[in-house]
Amino acid sequence: MKTLLTQVQEIFDTERFLAEPKELYAPIDYTLRLGGKRIRPLLLLAANQMFDGDLSQVRNAALGIETFHNFTLLHDDLMDKSPLRRGQPTVYRKWDENTAILSGDTMFALAWRYFLRQSHARLQEILNCFNETAILVCEGQQYDMNFEHSGHITLSDYMEMIRLKTAVLLAGALKIGALYAEAPDSDIARLYDFGIHLGLAFQLQDDLLDSFGDVAVFGKKTGQDIRDNKKTYLYLKALETGAPAQRERLQALFSTTPAQDDDKVAEVLELYKILAIRRKTEEAVQEEFSLAKGALDAIQVDEQKKSVLRQLTETLLNRDK
Amino acid sequence: MKTLLTQVQEIFDTERFLAEPKELYAPIDYTLRLGGKRIRPLLLLAANQMFDGDLSQVRNAALGIETFHNFTLLHDDLMDKSPLRRGQPTVYRKWDENTAILSGDTMFALAWRYFLRQSHARLQEILNCFNETAILVCEGQQYDMNFEHSGHITLSDYMEMIRLKTAVLLAGALKIGALYAEAPDSDIARLYDFGIHLGLAFQLQDDLLDSFGDVAVFGKKTGQDIRDNKKTYLYLKALETGAPAQRERLQALFSTTPAQDDDKVAEVLELYKILAIRRKTEEAVQEEFSLAKGALDAIQVDEQKKSVLRQLTETLLNRDK
Repeated sequence: MKTLLTQVQEIFDTERFLAEPKELYAPIDYTLRLGGKRIRPLLLLAANQMFDGDLSQVRNAALGIETFHNFTLLHDDLMDKSPLRRGQPTVYRKWDENTAILSGDTMFALAWRYFLRQSHARLQEILNCFNETAILVCEGQQYDMNFEHSGHITLSDYMEMIRLKTAVLLAGALKIGALYAEAPDSDIARLYDFGIHLGLAFQLQDDLLDSFGDVAVFGKKTGQDIRDNKKTYLYLKALETGAPAQRERLQALFSTTPAQDDDKVAEVLELYKILAIRRKTEEAVQEEFSLAKGALDAIQVDEQKKSVLRQLTETLLNRDK
Repeated sequence: MKTLLTQVQEIFDTERFLAEPKELYAPIDYTLRLGGKRIRPLLLLAANQMFDGDLSQVRNAALGIETFHNFTLLHDDLMDKSPLRRGQPTVYRKWDENTAILSGDTMFALAWRYFLRQSHARLQEILNCFNETAILVCEGQQYDMNFEHSGHITLSDYMEMIRLKTAVLLAGALKIGALYAEAPDSDIARLYDFGIHLGLAFQLQDDLLDSFGDVAVFGKKTGQDIRDNKKTYLYLKALETGAPAQRERLQALFSTTPAQDDDKVAEVLELYKILAIRRKTEEAVQEEFSLAKGALDAIQVDEQKKSVLRQLTETLLNRDK
């Protein structure tokens, strides 16, 4: 896995994102150099190598998938009015809203440029997978925004939203890596399934860290989702589990104007504690993790070839930030 | 040409743009049903038929190019804070800014879905042409926004900006239509050249209509570019042609806060009259028109097959709205 990390690092270090007009490309360069975990290119390369693919064939696809992901972050940050990304000012804050819109649009097209740089026998299928994934990610973001204004979200609505907003892109990255290696369709389907459950576990883990992370390691204040009234898995599970009075209190707390209110965070966390929400969410993570593991087990390649994806999964789910 | 118009109409009438979540797709459906001249799909189909292409092969590409064009309008209207498009409220006004951002992003992906629906021997080349065109259009919009804040725009800066923002998409539509018909590369290059000059003439014509259009036919108030301090061909030509005092006066008039100021419009139009800006711009239109005609003349197909593009050119350049 270390080799893989080095390969991804090398791909991004040697690529140039600056061009003219600089007003358009400087924010793109800034965004793509902010770093991040580079999970999607890692998954794409890992899937490719599992089926004996050729790194030189997927280098551009790795750049493409990460460029697309960063485009969605750029526009999401504008829509959500988030001031920071990876500890740095977001593009719409550092520049302005129009820059965020247009540089984002251009990043989407640059992602396509990467995917179109090379030929491949299954190129149309690869591009279709990329594009249908992009559409689902947009739909997921729309559901996420709808949820802000809707009072009737169920846990299954939430799981469907994070499937679209987060999981399909991890699954898509894996599928694309495997398509480049011309893996058999049956294994590609298993790999996609693995990616979906990995993505769901990953997002639930994110929800957990936001409320229960170790501040020193997490690197930012915990409880932000609670302050923002975000209807996460934790909140919806507490609504489902709580007695009527607890449910009402929770809904009242999540109807206040978002503010830096530490009393509110403490009260919600206390409610979560009483209702064992941490353990219940950890169980949900484990369940998705088992489903992911089952899908990976079923793939018809030597166990030794699965070791990178197994390692990557462990790392992602045992992370503390 | 009437047949072609009917064909384009039929393509858009039979296509459905609604899906779930409706918050995402209703603005897309609204935008794509607002109509418009459908010039890009018309050009794509006309180019395809000129080289004996098959309509069933380019139906999706026609939808794709128009969906992309409408995506750029949707985001441009948000960036420019334009209240109206084709006489109707723009998406960011009818819904909100976030809707305009995300529905726009989705339209870009839907454009790709159309292009990816069918196979073609030259598909990668077609997709590359589409995508590189998209990138140039974004660069053109960035230059257009830069010009607002820059005091040193030359006529050649302006021509380069409208080449990127407008002309390359007309040229790209023609090239894609010809690629589907497997036209020879030499003719495709001529057709692209034709599209560039047609696009430049078209945009200069737009500038002219905004100042000198017949209000009754034009359908909206003339002089809006002057009220908005837009650095159009007319303005830049006047700066280039005018004596120092006239230049200074014009720059002063274009430095006032944009407002519904009819006195300012009258004074600028008077200056344009003194400097013969209308005639000079008409000459520039004619020059681009001649270059376009020359490129079309050089294409190696029967004259009769060029008649649709000739008709279309005449219609576009003799339009009064």
